[in-house]
Amino acid sequence: MASIILRGAQRVDTIDVQDRGLNYGDGVFENILIHQSQPVWWNEHWQRLLKGLDRLTISAPDHDFIRQQADNLIKQSERYDAVLKIVVTRGSAGRGYAPSKDAEPTIMLSLHVAPVASSKDGIHIRWCNTQLSSQPLLAGIKHLNRLEQVLARAEWDDPQITDGLMCDQQGRVVCATAANAFFLIDGQWQTPKITHCGIEGIARAWLLEHLPNVVETEIKIPDVAGAETMFLCNAVRGVMPVLSVDQQHFSQMAPAYRVRELLANAIPAFAR
Amino acid sequence: MASIILRGAQRVDTIDVQDRGLNYGDGVFENILIHQSQPVWWNEHWQRLLKGLDRLTISAPDHDFIRQQADNLIKQSERYDAVLKIVVTRGSAGRGYAPSKDAEPTIMLSLHVAPVASSKDGIHIRWCNTQLSSQPLLAGIKHLNRLEQVLARAEWDDPQITDGLMCDQQGRVVCATAANAFFLIDGQWQTPKITHCGIEGIARAWLLEHLPNVVETEIKIPDVAGAETMFLCNAVRGVMPVLSVDQQHFSQMAPAYRVRELLANAIPAFAR
Repeated sequence: MASIILRGAQRVDTIDVQDRGLNYGDGVFENILIHQSQPVWWNEHWQRLLKGLDRLTISAPDHDFIRQQADNLIKQSERYDAVLKIVVTRGSAGRGYAPSKDAEPTIMLSLHVAPVASSKDGIHIRWCNTQLSSQPLLAGIKHLNRLEQVLARAEWDDPQITDGLMCDQQGRVVCATAANAFFLIDGQWQTPKITHCGIEGIARAWLLEHLPNVVETEIKIPDVAGAETMFLCNAVRGVMPVLSVDQQHFSQMAPAYRVRELLANAIPAFAR
Repeated sequence: MASIILRGAQRVDTIDVQDRGLNYGDGVFENILIHQSQPVWWNEHWQRLLKGLDRLTISAPDHDFIRQQADNLIKQSERYDAVLKIVVTRGSAGRGYAPSKDAEPTIMLSLHVAPVASSKDGIHIRWCNTQLSSQPLLAGIKHLNRLEQVLARAEWDDPQITDGLMCDQQGRVVCATAANAFFLIDGQWQTPKITHCGIEGIARAWLLEHLPNVVETEIKIPDVAGAETMFLCNAVRGVMPVLSVDQQHFSQMAPAYRVRELLANAIPAFAR
């Protein structure tokens, strides 16, 4: 796995033991699909990264510099299709939670194998028991405090199960461990609001803009039982039509396939 | 700052970019007071570390091996009084939340300057606006997802303010950003239950065992307004009598001083 570590604008060899990303999860990250050596949705990822850094009051790195580093990494690795992960932490500081104002942020860029394309038919998912906690201060951003997702993902190891739906503690459906979720309910695409927990996905934002009949709303577990069909989506895997959630099987797949096609037609990287 | 990084039982030079501690906060930590080159409450810290690792299903490192590494680090640094920080993460793995079962945990030991003793009179603290989210699966353990504490600690930079009290989203007082809290209410020492958020502090546990008249209970903000006196405590700084919380000044300090004395008499490391 090719990677670059930067402290501010300086290339460095190692991550410091005192890095606040490592000690407190004090930072944010992005996973960016690389298709034909080009990042997909780069601007959208960069904007979300900035939003997260702003929320945590971490100084933003220089855009052009990071983009150049990313391009170099992609070029050197000769990987045509891949996933570029960018992590930005508040940098290195002594013990104690107080955010050190003069620390240089740590930036890590790493290039990973692109995920295997999901089956054309769709994916199988499950319900997770692990519930998401409510924290409006952190909702939406892709920060590094991901233990809830780790606990939820640890609930199964069946490779046939691609992901799991997570609810908050009030029984509202929020997202999957690594994707947002859309449900076709009463003829309308609906996706949970991201106000108390969950991540504002890049693919989710694109679909909210491009689907003809879609709303952000509150979705409870029984609403899913009554859904006609559903899909998961993220910026690396695009739209993933869902065949089943545990014992609930969806028979009407066509609407979800059409959404997948809509995205694939607009962005060829997702036409796999 | 002296430090040691271990991957399983192997000494290594660097932390991997893919370390799950860095990427997800997937691990736990302890801050252990070193007094006259000896760890204070070593067994208690080790037990809490094990409890946290068990909760996260991370394999525990070998006790005797880590203790030996810690002793070597202390001896080499020639620091008589210090704080030993131990971080254990699930180790290094590829992208994705699924906990890799064969990853060797990463263990970091680092030795830090002991904090300056607080004023004999007591400390000044404040209320934090940042609220703790409820997550029973993670409550009690000292895991690496600490963004709420970082946000709370970022609320002030007045060096006269030692710490800040945090509430949950139901208005229950839970703890300070880096300490547990005890309140003398109606002649009885009371400390918040740690069931939905917060850390089960080592000093807190010692005091629950050794104070003659103490309960774990639910404490709301108005209860603090009616408290006769209060103190914060942690395993590095011991008992810290509180002079004021924002505009609320405590005049009856004697009961808190007596608790500090109780601890100092039992454990000389805290008699500073």
